[in-house]
Amino acid sequence: MTAFRFELLARDPATGGRRGRLHTPHGSVETPCFMPVGTRGTVKAIAQEDLEAIGAEIILGNTYHLLLRPGHELIAGLGGLHRFIAWPHPILTDSGGFQVFSLGGLNRIEEEGVTFRSHLDGSRHQLTPELSIGIQRALGSDIAMAFDDCTPYPATPEQTRASLERTMRWAARSQAAWAAGGGDECGPVLFGIVQGGMDTGLRSEAAARMAAMRFAGYAVGGVSVGEPRELSEAAVAAAVAALPEDKPRYLMGVGTPAELVRYAALGIDMMDCVLPTRNARNGLLFTSAGPLAIKQARYARDPLPPDPRCGCRVCARYSRAYLRHLHLSKEILGAQLQTHHNLWHYLDTMRQVRHAIELGRLRPLIESWPYNRSN
Amino acid sequence: MTAFRFELLARDPATGGRRGRLHTPHGSVETPCFMPVGTRGTVKAIAQEDLEAIGAEIILGNTYHLLLRPGHELIAGLGGLHRFIAWPHPILTDSGGFQVFSLGGLNRIEEEGVTFRSHLDGSRHQLTPELSIGIQRALGSDIAMAFDDCTPYPATPEQTRASLERTMRWAARSQAAWAAGGGDECGPVLFGIVQGGMDTGLRSEAAARMAAMRFAGYAVGGVSVGEPRELSEAAVAAAVAALPEDKPRYLMGVGTPAELVRYAALGIDMMDCVLPTRNARNGLLFTSAGPLAIKQARYARDPLPPDPRCGCRVCARYSRAYLRHLHLSKEILGAQLQTHHNLWHYLDTMRQVRHAIELGRLRPLIESWPYNRSN
Repeated sequence: MTAFRFELLARDPATGGRRGRLHTPHGSVETPCFMPVGTRGTVKAIAQEDLEAIGAEIILGNTYHLLLRPGHELIAGLGGLHRFIAWPHPILTDSGGFQVFSLGGLNRIEEEGVTFRSHLDGSRHQLTPELSIGIQRALGSDIAMAFDDCTPYPATPEQTRASLERTMRWAARSQAAWAAGGGDECGPVLFGIVQGGMDTGLRSEAAARMAAMRFAGYAVGGVSVGEPRELSEAAVAAAVAALPEDKPRYLMGVGTPAELVRYAALGIDMMDCVLPTRNARNGLLFTSAGPLAIKQARYARDPLPPDPRCGCRVCARYSRAYLRHLHLSKEILGAQLQTHHNLWHYLDTMRQVRHAIELGRLRPLIESWPYNRSN
Repeated sequence: MTAFRFELLARDPATGGRRGRLHTPHGSVETPCFMPVGTRGTVKAIAQEDLEAIGAEIILGNTYHLLLRPGHELIAGLGGLHRFIAWPHPILTDSGGFQVFSLGGLNRIEEEGVTFRSHLDGSRHQLTPELSIGIQRALGSDIAMAFDDCTPYPATPEQTRASLERTMRWAARSQAAWAAGGGDECGPVLFGIVQGGMDTGLRSEAAARMAAMRFAGYAVGGVSVGEPRELSEAAVAAAVAALPEDKPRYLMGVGTPAELVRYAALGIDMMDCVLPTRNARNGLLFTSAGPLAIKQARYARDPLPPDPRCGCRVCARYSRAYLRHLHLSKEILGAQLQTHHNLWHYLDTMRQVRHAIELGRLRPLIESWPYNRSN
């Protein structure tokens, strides 16, 4: 089995942007990359062969969702998550912490872990660093995440500090559990997560302390939790500055295409977000000219493709008028086609980013981005 | 534009089965054929490029649904149904009559036509033979259907006779409206519909009278409306016996794979049904070993494909355990993959039927069919 390795291929001279390649047990990934979110073992409304066709190289799995259904033991019994979902390429799993906080009913955070009720049937569960790592091992994820305490926004300085310290203690327990299961030598690796809220000093401290623990890679968590985007950029920049150059950096849950480009310029290597897939199901299309709400009456007789400058399969064949009809009729095909287009747009954005870094021209790409950062 | 033509290529010596080819303005169709149902301008949960990939050569459009949304005038303004839905291959449209009876609220049947309320917004509409033909012309359908009065089951002899006579009068009006719009010479053609309920004498009479009107093809309607299957076969056989040999015969709304094979042996050339697509969304898979309800607990850890003997893309990649997980999680991908498989199974059944007729071996195919006619 291929050992995990991060190769740094090029740097953009005018920004912090870097061009790299992740080597994982299930193949390599060109970075900076966007990772489609496969919450319950499926990137919603798109088949695995279509993900391959549009160039997705790595997808996410959600520990929380897969724990509740169908259960990690069932998946392990079928040969792991890759075999279960028929995706023989890299998979990153989150630790389940974020979903426990945002979806689990009546959750209680204690030092041991988090007790919560399933959003499916109300059954009671506890998730601890040790269990999260055990589940991620059972799933066979290529990149597992340490169990963390996601700092909410807003948070008082005391809350932010307490959340950071708990995240550090849980990171140590996650790392110990990971080592007990064979450590990084088995092939898959464990990433640490940097918290610290919107306090750049705490972000810097958290990153430095996490770096001292020598993880194979580092995630920046607790961003895109409702804060103004200026605060997130400052927090991310502070964290990145204190992280080692030779390890991959993953910004969790971010963002719009314009944000992907800007965060890549801060030196982020990996990003994920439900926006392209969720917006697709809501009829919101990402295009080279900005966002397009397909339900608008102006598109009722519009024969143009969603994005005339797009090279995707959907834009090659279907019109806005047809997509609008499908959306208003709540037809599944609308969700399918719009998901395909939006993911293509995201993956194409990352291809542009990688190409710009190779040419040393990431700054002009940001400056020429045709719409603002919220799109 | 290619003129419509039906070519009779071969006959099965031991049954009424025939192998043919339909030539339409949008291409040719090998018969006997199954036509996936594209109710609202989409075969639910499958993209047009995937329909092409699995070998669908003709699909259905529903006049009733497209009239209500997005409206036939909008579709005509965008170049017709083929362009609107990006399906450059043959399309058959129904007359709207069946949906008006089954979906339209508070419908009232009068000699002029049917008055009904939209199932979408309650708005009041009238559908007449002339309007149905006008809509089908506007859509640009390759094969249009005469507006008929679908005889319910059960029906008294008087009701059946009255429904048949109305269907004959409406067929004449449909034909006149079609001729006024250019007749069959424009490329697309009009089919007449044989009613007559479960009375074989009336079926025979209806077919003979319809044949005398010299349509380009003939449909058998009013089957699969709740009657025992023995009655439907007798009614279809009676109708077929009175129809001309050199014109295509379309059995509407039928049926299971086993039924497709049996009706092909009666001399039916075209069939359509929502079963493969609707059952797919309900987790019911058609397989070479019979039906498979994916939600059953026995499939929870089953690594086999839905049908190990199937050559479709889904069976090549995904397991029953995964499909069950998708179905229980109500994931769109479950509907997508199961629709793909079921339609492949239907189209593959028709490939087997055509091949068997070419070899003069349709009878053995029926006798070796591995499960009973309800599957």
